[in-house]
Amino acid sequence: MRNERISQQINFLSTMDHLKDVYRRTVLIFSDRKENTAEHTWHLLVAALVLREYAEVKIDLLHSLEMLIVHDIVEIDAGDVFAYDTDSHKSKYEKEAIAAKKLFGLLPRDQADYFLGLWIEFEAKETPEAKFAAAMDRFVPFVQNFISQGKTWKENPDVRKQNVLTRNTQIGEICPTLLKWLQESLDEAVQRNYIQE
Amino acid sequence: MRNERISQQINFLSTMDHLKDVYRRTVLIFSDRKENTAEHTWHLLVAALVLREYAEVKIDLLHSLEMLIVHDIVEIDAGDVFAYDTDSHKSKYEKEAIAAKKLFGLLPRDQADYFLGLWIEFEAKETPEAKFAAAMDRFVPFVQNFISQGKTWKENPDVRKQNVLTRNTQIGEICPTLLKWLQESLDEAVQRNYIQE
Repeated sequence: MRNERISQQINFLSTMDHLKDVYRRTVLIFSDRKENTAEHTWHLLVAALVLREYAEVKIDLLHSLEMLIVHDIVEIDAGDVFAYDTDSHKSKYEKEAIAAKKLFGLLPRDQADYFLGLWIEFEAKETPEAKFAAAMDRFVPFVQNFISQGKTWKENPDVRKQNVLTRNTQIGEICPTLLKWLQESLDEAVQRNYIQE
Repeated sequence: MRNERISQQINFLSTMDHLKDVYRRTVLIFSDRKENTAEHTWHLLVAALVLREYAEVKIDLLHSLEMLIVHDIVEIDAGDVFAYDTDSHKSKYEKEAIAAKKLFGLLPRDQADYFLGLWIEFEAKETPEAKFAAAMDRFVPFVQNFISQGKTWKENPDVRKQNVLTRNTQIGEICPTLLKWLQESLDEAVQRNYIQE
């Protein structure tokens, strides 16, 4: 029973506890601490269940959920990069690709390949499932920011309306209704001074 | 666009942020704070992907993942009850059922019914998908405890080997290999004084 396969899987699963110690820029809505990447990922998964009807093409929801579950595991090694930090984004993919190989490499070979494939597909954002997963990854932090009256925007005043629009336009490729809601809410956010024009 | 349906969904999704402020008894492996329920849920989802091969009957993995994603949302209202607190468990189901109706009731009616159905199915632990989801909910905290040399067990010395065995036996109904690994690891945990005999 104590075979190599199960030991590798247990080792991977316990390593996953580290993602709970990776903190993002987003401030929680109902308390003043930063959000960690593990709880963020759960939030995206709930969103995927609630908002699936807005995907304008048919998607394999299981496949989107699998991608979401693993998409940020690389941050255990590579850390979180703030969405609007364009310099860091240049080296982000290379760093994360190394982390992906190392972390998924803890798993038995077949699973390592499968998880790495999920991560690569998510990053490429070409399949409808990856586009939908990526839309959740953008839409939820927007909702958190909007509902908290711009908590994270106010901490990062260099981020303006146009930055938010540019970053989130991709949502429209798969969920135009959600993009429209976001655009209208963003106008409201400017009017209410949650974010600068 | 700003229709009632999307407003209800956004309200539900922002309410979900509260689950990040519900703390469990489990102490994290790599830091000394308690785990919150949102990040715990993510961990179960990763485990479901990694350990699916141990389900001895065919399961619809999407359905198990959906149940896992929503299974602890009730704790936003009902709080977390320690696994070994049998007094609190008596009133747990009633409290949680009220919370489920209230929280899922924030969603549009069709989704409220669907989510409530997922929660009821998970709690009943009768379908293979619910059994597998419940097995993850037991197995992962055991792994965290075992790998951290019994951090949570040491904080709760009333919990003995037999309590852990009794609580986790259900895992064997769907994943006998995982139960066997757990039993062997529990013996090792006793030998190493992570937990009392």
